[in-house]
Amino acid sequence: MARVLLIQGPNMSYLGKRQPELYGTTSAAELDALLNEEAKGLGCTLDIFYTHVEGEAIARIYQAVEEGFDGLLMNPAGFLYAGYALRDCLNAIPHPYVEVHMTNIDRRGFHSLMAARSDGLIHGLGVQSYLFGLRALVMLIEARAEGK
Amino acid sequence: MARVLLIQGPNMSYLGKRQPELYGTTSAAELDALLNEEAKGLGCTLDIFYTHVEGEAIARIYQAVEEGFDGLLMNPAGFLYAGYALRDCLNAIPHPYVEVHMTNIDRRGFHSLMAARSDGLIHGLGVQSYLFGLRALVMLIEARAEGK
Amino acid sequence: MARVLLIQGPNMSYLGKRQPELYGTTSAAELDALLNEEAKGLGCTLDIFYTHVEGEAIARIYQAVEEGFDGLLMNPAGFLYAGYALRDCLNAIPHPYVEVHMTNIDRRGFHSLMAARSDGLIHGLGVQSYLFGLRALVMLIEARAEGK
Amino acid sequence: MARVLLIQGPNMSYLGKRQPELYGTTSAAELDALLNEEAKGLGCTLDIFYTHVEGEAIARIYQAVEEGFDGLLMNPAGFLYAGYALRDCLNAIPHPYVEVHMTNIDRRGFHSLMAARSDGLIHGLGVQSYLFGLRALVMLIEARAEGK
Amino acid sequence: MARVLLIQGPNMSYLGKRQPELYGTTSAAELDALLNEEAKGLGCTLDIFYTHVEGEAIARIYQAVEEGFDGLLMNPAGFLYAGYALRDCLNAIPHPYVEVHMTNIDRRGFHSLMAARSDGLIHGLGVQSYLFGLRALVMLIEARAEGK
Amino acid sequence: MARVLLIQGPNMSYLGKRQPELYGTTSAAELDALLNEEAKGLGCTLDIFYTHVEGEAIARIYQAVEEGFDGLLMNPAGFLYAGYALRDCLNAIPHPYVEVHMTNIDRRGFHSLMAARSDGLIHGLGVQSYLFGLRALVMLIEARAEGK
Amino acid sequence: MARVLLIQGPNMSYLGKRQPELYGTTSAAELDALLNEEAKGLGCTLDIFYTHVEGEAIARIYQAVEEGFDGLLMNPAGFLYAGYALRDCLNAIPHPYVEVHMTNIDRRGFHSLMAARSDGLIHGLGVQSYLFGLRALVMLIEARAEGK
Amino acid sequence: MARVLLIQGPNMSYLGKRQPELYGTTSAAELDALLNEEAKGLGCTLDIFYTHVEGEAIARIYQAVEEGFDGLLMNPAGFLYAGYALRDCLNAIPHPYVEVHMTNIDRRGFHSLMAARSDGLIHGLGVQSYLFGLRALVMLIEARAEGK
Amino acid sequence: MARVLLIQGPNMSYLGKRQPELYGTTSAAELDALLNEEAKGLGCTLDIFYTHVEGEAIARIYQAVEEGFDGLLMNPAGFLYAGYALRDCLNAIPHPYVEVHMTNIDRRGFHSLMAARSDGLIHGLGVQSYLFGLRALVMLIEARAEGK
Amino acid sequence: MARVLLIQGPNMSYLGKRQPELYGTTSAAELDALLNEEAKGLGCTLDIFYTHVEGEAIARIYQAVEEGFDGLLMNPAGFLYAGYALRDCLNAIPHPYVEVHMTNIDRRGFHSLMAARSDGLIHGLGVQSYLFGLRALVMLIEARAEGK
Amino acid sequence: MARVLLIQGPNMSYLGKRQPELYGTTSAAELDALLNEEAKGLGCTLDIFYTHVEGEAIARIYQAVEEGFDGLLMNPAGFLYAGYALRDCLNAIPHPYVEVHMTNIDRRGFHSLMAARSDGLIHGLGVQSYLFGLRALVMLIEARAEGK
Amino acid sequence: MARVLLIQGPNMSYLGKRQPELYGTTSAAELDALLNEEAKGLGCTLDIFYTHVEGEAIARIYQAVEEGFDGLLMNPAGFLYAGYALRDCLNAIPHPYVEVHMTNIDRRGFHSLMAARSDGLIHGLGVQSYLFGLRALVMLIEARAEGK
Repeated sequence: MARVLLIQGPNMSYLGKRQPELYGTTSAAELDALLNEEAKGLGCTLDIFYTHVEGEAIARIYQAVEEGFDGLLMNPAGFLYAGYALRDCLNAIPHPYVEVHMTNIDRRGFHSLMAARSDGLIHGLGVQSYLFGLRALVMLIEARAEGK
Repeated sequence: MARVLLIQGPNMSYLGKRQPELYGTTSAAELDALLNEEAKGLGCTLDIFYTHVEGEAIARIYQAVEEGFDGLLMNPAGFLYAGYALRDCLNAIPHPYVEVHMTNIDRRGFHSLMAARSDGLIHGLGVQSYLFGLRALVMLIEARAEGK
Repeated sequence: MARVLLIQGPNMSYLGKRQPELYGTTSAAELDALLNEEAKGLGCTLDIFYTHVEGEAIARIYQAVEEGFDGLLMNPAGFLYAGYALRDCLNAIPHPYVEVHMTNIDRRGFHSLMAARSDGLIHGLGVQSYLFGLRALVMLIEARAEGK
Repeated sequence: MARVLLIQGPNMSYLGKRQPELYGTTSAAELDALLNEEAKGLGCTLDIFYTHVEGEAIARIYQAVEEGFDGLLMNPAGFLYAGYALRDCLNAIPHPYVEVHMTNIDRRGFHSLMAARSDGLIHGLGVQSYLFGLRALVMLIEARAEGK
Repeated sequence: MARVLLIQGPNMSYLGKRQPELYGTTSAAELDALLNEEAKGLGCTLDIFYTHVEGEAIARIYQAVEEGFDGLLMNPAGFLYAGYALRDCLNAIPHPYVEVHMTNIDRRGFHSLMAARSDGLIHGLGVQSYLFGLRALVMLIEARAEGK
Repeated sequence: MARVLLIQGPNMSYLGKRQPELYGTTSAAELDALLNEEAKGLGCTLDIFYTHVEGEAIARIYQAVEEGFDGLLMNPAGFLYAGYALRDCLNAIPHPYVEVHMTNIDRRGFHSLMAARSDGLIHGLGVQSYLFGLRALVMLIEARAEGK
Repeated sequence: MARVLLIQGPNMSYLGKRQPELYGTTSAAELDALLNEEAKGLGCTLDIFYTHVEGEAIARIYQAVEEGFDGLLMNPAGFLYAGYALRDCLNAIPHPYVEVHMTNIDRRGFHSLMAARSDGLIHGLGVQSYLFGLRALVMLIEARAEGK
Repeated sequence: MARVLLIQGPNMSYLGKRQPELYGTTSAAELDALLNEEAKGLGCTLDIFYTHVEGEAIARIYQAVEEGFDGLLMNPAGFLYAGYALRDCLNAIPHPYVEVHMTNIDRRGFHSLMAARSDGLIHGLGVQSYLFGLRALVMLIEARAEGK
Repeated sequence: MARVLLIQGPNMSYLGKRQPELYGTTSAAELDALLNEEAKGLGCTLDIFYTHVEGEAIARIYQAVEEGFDGLLMNPAGFLYAGYALRDCLNAIPHPYVEVHMTNIDRRGFHSLMAARSDGLIHGLGVQSYLFGLRALVMLIEARAEGK
Repeated sequence: MARVLLIQGPNMSYLGKRQPELYGTTSAAELDALLNEEAKGLGCTLDIFYTHVEGEAIARIYQAVEEGFDGLLMNPAGFLYAGYALRDCLNAIPHPYVEVHMTNIDRRGFHSLMAARSDGLIHGLGVQSYLFGLRALVMLIEARAEGK
Repeated sequence: MARVLLIQGPNMSYLGKRQPELYGTTSAAELDALLNEEAKGLGCTLDIFYTHVEGEAIARIYQAVEEGFDGLLMNPAGFLYAGYALRDCLNAIPHPYVEVHMTNIDRRGFHSLMAARSDGLIHGLGVQSYLFGLRALVMLIEARAEGK
Repeated sequence: MARVLLIQGPNMSYLGKRQPELYGTTSAAELDALLNEEAKGLGCTLDIFYTHVEGEAIARIYQAVEEGFDGLLMNPAGFLYAGYALRDCLNAIPHPYVEVHMTNIDRRGFHSLMAARSDGLIHGLGVQSYLFGLRALVMLIEARAEGK
């Protein structure tokens, strides 16, 4: 059974109240419920971690490595601009990593520092970005388990 | 029943023989078969058009508008660098557009001119990028049909 | 009697349906009618060629050289960004060339690769840009014929 | 009857003596005569103001606003490089503005700060740039008067 | 017997009439004759393809791969500026590629996108660039055949 | 009664000991006393929060939103360079925000990422920057309360 | 009694009529009245000088030096982009200088050439920017007079 | 007896497991042991602090200042890219600072924001970088104590 | 007898009082006396014109052309940054032009827009720059008169 | 009989031992032998000069001018980056110059300062680059001798 | 016994007299003595070579290769800016290379072209930089000799 | 009696034969004669040193320091582009330095690395640049001798 860690970057806990014309009206709690349900359907465990502090995200990832986990789903959110230490962390571990963004970051003129490290990237599809991202990550974990 | 046009940009017809360490060994014909099957499952029609010529891609899109279609899936491939006229074309039509790339284009240092216009973007997941992309496009078409 | 070739760049055939807040509601057919009437009034022949393919524009220009023509009117549209080969073509022929744009391309942050080669440039005046452009081109052809 | 103000930027009073290979041999006085005649034909009044001082051009425009005028024709000449305050002035008034240049400024590698604010721009046609420009401005004034 | 494909990029069919101070007065037909004679002397077959359309050059190369050929000689001409898709195509095939330019492109401030992919590059020697290029390509084909 | 949150960015707790030629000799405690007195005079409550961690500043702001507050005063200090996530946070809330700096940051060649989001900005006046900033913020809060 | 010179840069005389969504509806005359009243309250004399011409601002400052004055308040307005000579002038005199802008110039993407020379800078607070600016300038003059 | 603080930046606690081709196989614990032994030999006390959070590094440095310490050794690791607040902190204290990196950061295309503040910098020598760094720092502390 | 016009750019009238560590303590009046004496020695007439307004410098040069003069000496001072219109003016006249600066403008990181148009340039020598400049200009005028 | 000077830039004397994966295993002595043989076949004299010092290359070229020579073949090697003085030297003499590089310098991201001055350029063909280069140079010398 | 070559770049022979506030008062001769003593302690031979000419440094390195040496210590000094040929030389040899600078080159805004090639880099520690550098180089030579 | 060293940079020995349209027809020997005569008139000794090698210029300057000299006149010629080590040398000595160029280097788009270090700079006046330069240098030496 695949063990997945989802990291939600800065300001994501404010989801639903934050610029709803960009991010929609689904709250963080509602998103968590949707994702847990999806995880159940995919037969994986899902651990969700919200943080505004880049160093806490790094620490949480190393903790997951210690505990044994299979893959990382992350919306780096505001870490995408200058999260160099987080990028170093991703480069330090061998696990599959899928990156998601709710909005089309190209349209907003942003560039994610971590995108080049991801094994897959999905953006612009709102809440659906997470659902596709989780599915893609599980697929990658299973393919790896099968030695592909 | 959603009518989808898939445009495959330059060099994609050579798939399977072209840099397999990047693009895998699935041939263009095999990919078409996979996508047609997926389309059947999603209950949509799928029209696949391969071209090396940017102007032909533009003409094919306007033809689809004339014939009535519901959404565009595209791997712009080599058009991503300098396909300004194609970008103008996408800006000229109101249909949902999902962009897919088999490889992680960020890792390769590329930037897609059309990405900012897309309603969703998926890259890095190989053949799976197309399957997720088709599913996302159908979802967007249905949401629009339902007036969401 | 001056023989004029008008080249309409990519997406111009979609005129009237394409971003009407920018380009107005006159269709390509209506524009052609207006221009043919103006040509009659100016006593010149007018050949109008629409294409989305840069190489076809180049081929059409060399064909016009072979057939004998006196000047080129062009709205490069989407070729303005990366139409280096078209620019090379314009540099290869000695005929007067007037460039027109319906919109104010400076305001939209665009720069035309061919503008430096033009003998005159008119932009921002919508359909009227073409009418002034045709008139300016005929004037330049006549001045040249008179050895000025 | 449309009331038009023409502003001639720095060095334009030296026309005819200044780099004739670029600007031709028509003097400033001769150009004024041509334009007054054209204005008469178009049924508009024309006020011509020469200045080397950007702030005087700004003051002249506000004076015209006070006196009531309908549109501005301007060859910003040497103000095109750094005339930020003049650009602010144009942004502060709602009147139609047509910009003209005698030479092809793209070919000379220049970019006009005011061009993005213009409602129409004509360059490269020598003295004829002014005549087309005046005609275009009158057309814009009349269209606005007719509520178009 | 080595089978060579020569691709002539946009505007090259106009050779001899186009800016003779740069490209000389040899026409395209005369150049073809010179090259066919040289090919005969080198004991190779030579297929010459002129096109203004980048996508057609790509298609012609894949066709040559299908038919079996041994190496590519190309003057990318106007494709050198923005021919990203053509570059992708060259990267997709393993055949030796020699690039030629009649003029010194460095002196003209140009940079060829494809140059980094070439196995050899010759420029500035006019018609002679092609003759040296053909000879170099045949040498590379033979060396490869001999397993060097 | 207006409720104001003041955030003091990294290194500000070291005030008085840190580069006194730039920041003066007033200590953080003395500054707090001055500001509390000013707040009393202005009839507002003032909550002062010192942190070196950007994510803690973000969390503190969301907490203030939950508790109900009326406006933010902040010296982003060292967050001004790369505090993208903090900027996202400011964009996520509708409250008035006044930014202050003790030194002239232009003279030191710095640019604040958050400045464009501020409703007012005061810098270069040392301790006085805070006093004017607090006064300006209270004015903005009152104007908003009066529906201006 | 502190003697203050206020310089209002180009287009400021048009205040109230110029882009009221940016600059509000207070006219230049009304602003002058507000400032004179404030000056009276602060016990200083205030001389207000409006000009569109950078060189006139420079001359006015040197005249104030001759006449004896204590500090400069200025809204450089359109001089902020390219007012290098004005900046040289400010560098040539030892008097305190406070710079004010009605709008948030960072948000509009502008950078003031003179800001680095200022002893204090206030922007984004509309008419209030002037009132705070005048108060700050008087404080600086008094501090200097007291040998601080 | 010199009191030294060593700060290990983000991801350094993962040493030995992280990209061993770059950082070697010595673990963080083994490195600590080596350094403590070296410190004993040099007659100094050594306090080692690992953190992924830039603000915690800043707080730890100010705490050391309060407790009385003599010099800082630091591998800023992932803070080198965007650690502006940490750099401000270093500028705020007068203590000698030696910066070390295990790898050659020039070869990897990185530039350390703090390097310009350091009194000495050693990189590329793996674990040895720390040993030389500690020795250099002690030397600098002693020289300062001797009033050199 | 050579007739020379000397233009002194903005802030030069304040010479002697302005940043004496850069410009020395010679006043504008003393400099004029030195130059008039030198002119007498060289047998030329010298007309000195001080202005802070770029457009007035332009007007003064055209007036000199009308009156007949032989060469221009100028310290563009603050016009050097953005004096594009003044540069156009210099390009419009055929007279020899020598540019002088009292300070080493390279050391201060400045670049003069007019320098490329000058027939000779002298900087860094304080008052002596003017004396050498006048001498050089007279030499150039005489050489031209002798048809060299 | 054509007299040719070949200059081998810095590090070329180490050929065969230097990065053989780039430069092959032919030693400098073997290359000289090959070239002398080729020169004999072409009926020209060949003088080969190795140097690591740019100024010595310049001196050698002027010496060749003094002695009378007909053309220069050069592999500028490490001079290509910053050999401005050598480029000045090439611009100072009228002789034909052919530049050669063993490797594809475009692929390695280098740009030769001298390339724009060359009459022909060949790179990427290893030892063969020299042989083609010598042949091309002799052809250019003969063409010039024949007054072409 | 390790054989070490030390190259001292341009201006280093002037040490002690050159900008002593940067480089201290130790003369070149005194530095040599210190280093020879250190070399004796480390059990290695040390050959010191001073040169102002980049090509001579290159030649000296190849000579050392011929004579058999084990590692290079270098202060590239003024070669750091544009010593591309020297960098090529370092890339051409497999020996360990340690780079030293007396001053903190980051603080001075310099970047060494050779730093990326070094096996270790030490700067900012004055004369001590050399002593640490020599020690590090000997360590690297010994580790290599032991097959590590 | 002032002792002056004149350094002539690369290619200057070829004067008179090198691009006479830029540098005139005076040969190096003739220039030397002119300068020696001028030196006699000024009562100074003049030592002229021609070199193509930057390191030799540096060595020559340090030799002059050893021998005792009073000032340096230099035409850096081709060293102006990349002569960083020479610039370091000039910074290392306290003597007055006057830089001369025969041509207007601004017009040719060049920038001299050493110009910022010069005490005076004269360019564009051909042979006369040297004569003025020598005179200026002697003046600076005398002023310094007089303790000014």
